[in-house]
Amino acid sequence: MTTAPILLTPGPLTTSARTRQAMMVDWGSWDDRFNQLTASACEHLLAILNGADTHHCVPLQGSGTFAVEAAIGTLVPRNGKVLVLINGAYGKRLARICDVLGRDFSTFETAEDEPTTAADVDRLLQADKAITHVALIHCETSTGILNPLPEIAQVIKNHGKRLIIDAMSSFGALPINAHEVPFDALIAASGKCLEGVPGMGFVFAEKTALAAAQGNCHSLAMDLFDQHSYMAKTGQWRFTPPTHVVAALHEALLQYVEEGGLPARHRRYARNCQVLLDGMAELGLRSFLPAAIQAPIIVTFHAPQDPHYQFKDFYERVKAKGFILYPGKLTQVETFRVGCIGHVDATDMHAAVTAIAEALQAMGITLSSFGAHA
Amino acid sequence: MTTAPILLTPGPLTTSARTRQAMMVDWGSWDDRFNQLTASACEHLLAILNGADTHHCVPLQGSGTFAVEAAIGTLVPRNGKVLVLINGAYGKRLARICDVLGRDFSTFETAEDEPTTAADVDRLLQADKAITHVALIHCETSTGILNPLPEIAQVIKNHGKRLIIDAMSSFGALPINAHEVPFDALIAASGKCLEGVPGMGFVFAEKTALAAAQGNCHSLAMDLFDQHSYMAKTGQWRFTPPTHVVAALHEALLQYVEEGGLPARHRRYARNCQVLLDGMAELGLRSFLPAAIQAPIIVTFHAPQDPHYQFKDFYERVKAKGFILYPGKLTQVETFRVGCIGHVDATDMHAAVTAIAEALQAMGITLSSFGAHA
Repeated sequence: MTTAPILLTPGPLTTSARTRQAMMVDWGSWDDRFNQLTASACEHLLAILNGADTHHCVPLQGSGTFAVEAAIGTLVPRNGKVLVLINGAYGKRLARICDVLGRDFSTFETAEDEPTTAADVDRLLQADKAITHVALIHCETSTGILNPLPEIAQVIKNHGKRLIIDAMSSFGALPINAHEVPFDALIAASGKCLEGVPGMGFVFAEKTALAAAQGNCHSLAMDLFDQHSYMAKTGQWRFTPPTHVVAALHEALLQYVEEGGLPARHRRYARNCQVLLDGMAELGLRSFLPAAIQAPIIVTFHAPQDPHYQFKDFYERVKAKGFILYPGKLTQVETFRVGCIGHVDATDMHAAVTAIAEALQAMGITLSSFGAHA
Repeated sequence: MTTAPILLTPGPLTTSARTRQAMMVDWGSWDDRFNQLTASACEHLLAILNGADTHHCVPLQGSGTFAVEAAIGTLVPRNGKVLVLINGAYGKRLARICDVLGRDFSTFETAEDEPTTAADVDRLLQADKAITHVALIHCETSTGILNPLPEIAQVIKNHGKRLIIDAMSSFGALPINAHEVPFDALIAASGKCLEGVPGMGFVFAEKTALAAAQGNCHSLAMDLFDQHSYMAKTGQWRFTPPTHVVAALHEALLQYVEEGGLPARHRRYARNCQVLLDGMAELGLRSFLPAAIQAPIIVTFHAPQDPHYQFKDFYERVKAKGFILYPGKLTQVETFRVGCIGHVDATDMHAAVTAIAEALQAMGITLSSFGAHA
């Protein structure tokens, strides 16, 4: 096989050879050395958000969505009510989870390029005293939009309500300090900004909230109270862990620390994002979001308004040059997305922009730098 | 790192270097080539039980237990009633899942060394007409006992009821023909007799039963109706797949076919089991189950009745010699378990028996071949 293409997607993403190499060992799930890998990974994860004294890290088998569902199912009591803040597909998924689980909920939706504000949340909590929990997406992968988490968290705390944060695509790259942002649950996964491989999620659950959550959950496998209790008692996962995925995450976390932790990871992604935005602007490709609300995770670009443009063709041509892009997820406007995360750097992003330019040229699409899409 | 120990456990187990090597590539979950890996794996899996015309293969993120819960949640209607057949810990887990999911159920429990019989099931279905589904464990990993699946399946069909089979530790090694054994769901996982790595399960769901299952499920992530519908429409997993685990399973399935499919896999495991049983008998270690109901998957041995014996010490000594054993799971008698499955052969099993003999000797435990434990 020739060199695999670089993934410029929201995850799974490109990992380092060292991370993948950690999967070359078969671990026994009952063995002490494997249990130490899990415990060490959880310690690293808690340190990233400064949460060791306030939160438990509860790992869970499956994709990130499994962990989100587990958090809502475990931490929202059956008679609770969730206010779901929506500005994209993942916010909608939160509402769908509440619906399927039979938890009462209401939604507040803004446009896909409009962050929810703390004032919105203040007003909504004022208006409906039945709300017990607020759930939101930190960085909404549908567009790449960043919601103002610290301000919203403070308002929720002032109202005496609980916060559940889907930080799937931001955790590890954007700073969140558990001492400054009060939350009951924050959810992320192995295969995103930590640059592990996909196959497990984890929930940072506030200690007293988790201790009070026995019997809430709708599911055996997703019960985070049980998962945590069993692991605290035995050091083992409650059901068969994805051993190779855990080993890869552990190795990825060692590299995360060696790179310089969150500040370094954020710096690299921010630089990736800037190189991408600058390069694409030079080609005449306009990004969907204004810079102020653009997280350095994934960027949505307007598709060229050209009769020769067709995403599938464009995708295949860029892939042949070594880069995997991601389709758009907006219903109103035609877009495509380019990720800034994974084991990639500014050199890769420059090369990706060149590949995109060559692909468009080969498709007979010409873009002028200014005004083409104004 | 020195050579990793061989896992003689019920899974995760020892895989081939070629299978692990398949995880050295990062796949995009949206990419055609990855979708082809998934589709090809599902085709291989359906072929193993001759189910392509009667069943869908629905893969699911997470451990095998996630897939078992998903099968019950999706295929048993909310007003259904499940008869759960129990002779070990995994049968008890089936009942626990029904309980947590709020499905009505009753249980029938036999001793851990006593298979459920078709006559039992006939009588139970006669006595309770409210039962809609029967759930059982094919090979109960608690002991290694084999339940008489074909006979039980026939009785269930005669009563016009539906069957859900947890074949986690038998699928791929013990023959099950979908044309001869009628079932609504059969569940297995990547990290067992197929010799992939852990991280995903799959459910073979009878086509008409799955088509009628919309809206049954208690969970968004575990809804097999939705999972299948989305995959049938797009070729993609509904939520982020464990890409490396899927690639490893696909590679493991290629090797499964090259080895000679199920007959060859069964032959190798049966030989592993026989070498183990013979060698251990020679040491004076007695197996818990009589040969007639002992599946060639995992063997439970009585612990030596010697004051010097302590499992943890024994385990560490055998591990130092390159083999990972498994603790017993019986409450009444002290036992330990040795797996026969994974990328291991008779030579490995001979070496394991030697390691066990040396460990016991070093612990000052002497066993006589005959009568010591009679």
